[in-house]
Amino acid sequence: MDWLDHVRWDAQGLVPVIAQEAGTGDVLMFAWMNREALARTAELGEAVYYSRSRQRLWHKGEESGHTQKVHEIRLDCDQDVVLLKVTQLGHEPGIACHTGRHSCFFERLDGGRWTAVDPVLKDPASIYQ
Amino acid sequence: MDWLDHVRWDAQGLVPVIAQEAGTGDVLMFAWMNREALARTAELGEAVYYSRSRQRLWHKGEESGHTQKVHEIRLDCDQDVVLLKVTQLGHEPGIACHTGRHSCFFERLDGGRWTAVDPVLKDPASIYQ
Repeated sequence: MDWLDHVRWDAQGLVPVIAQEAGTGDVLMFAWMNREALARTAELGEAVYYSRSRQRLWHKGEESGHTQKVHEIRLDCDQDVVLLKVTQLGHEPGIACHTGRHSCFFERLDGGRWTAVDPVLKDPASIYQ
Repeated sequence: MDWLDHVRWDAQGLVPVIAQEAGTGDVLMFAWMNREALARTAELGEAVYYSRSRQRLWHKGEESGHTQKVHEIRLDCDQDVVLLKVTQLGHEPGIACHTGRHSCFFERLDGGRWTAVDPVLKDPASIYQ
């Protein structure tokens, strides 16, 4: 699969990945992939990341049920960042964040302080049982 | 400015940054900031990144004129990724990419190969003179 060779993997063999909701354009989360994760993502049509903390593949939703159907895989001009266009499944509206929010980017800088501006859609304790 | 201390800078003192167009939701580019870059961005209301290759602050548009007006600065749940909501200035439609395209994410994986699917809006030779 030589398309994987076109990606400029970093010194750890990883590439940063942005997941964007296809319908709304919302940026849902940011994660990392290694070569195997990107290959699996393309093969499955579902997002498979590489967890740096757990040092293993992480099929998004494997615990939460909040999987991501992948519609498009894009690469940037330096071939070192991936953008996924996804549908966030498992809850309506979609929950991408482990805090139970739609997007991981829920803190906004307002007047010199960070404020959580998006609601928790589901209690994380009931997501991760 | 203790809001800067809330950001979890990496071992190089950097944080990854996603720039998203406020009006369209398009993800325009991905770059990095150090503490000074993020402080300057908040102060100016224009995107100032840290260029890892040039090892200096990079006020986006300083050469191209394609500056980014910043409407919102967001932080993710791990406090280690920044999302900017911007208006891409200096050309209509906005050009964020050094290739003269709207977005840096112009390559799409189609049938096992990367294909450039977005048009060049302006010849880079006439952008960078």
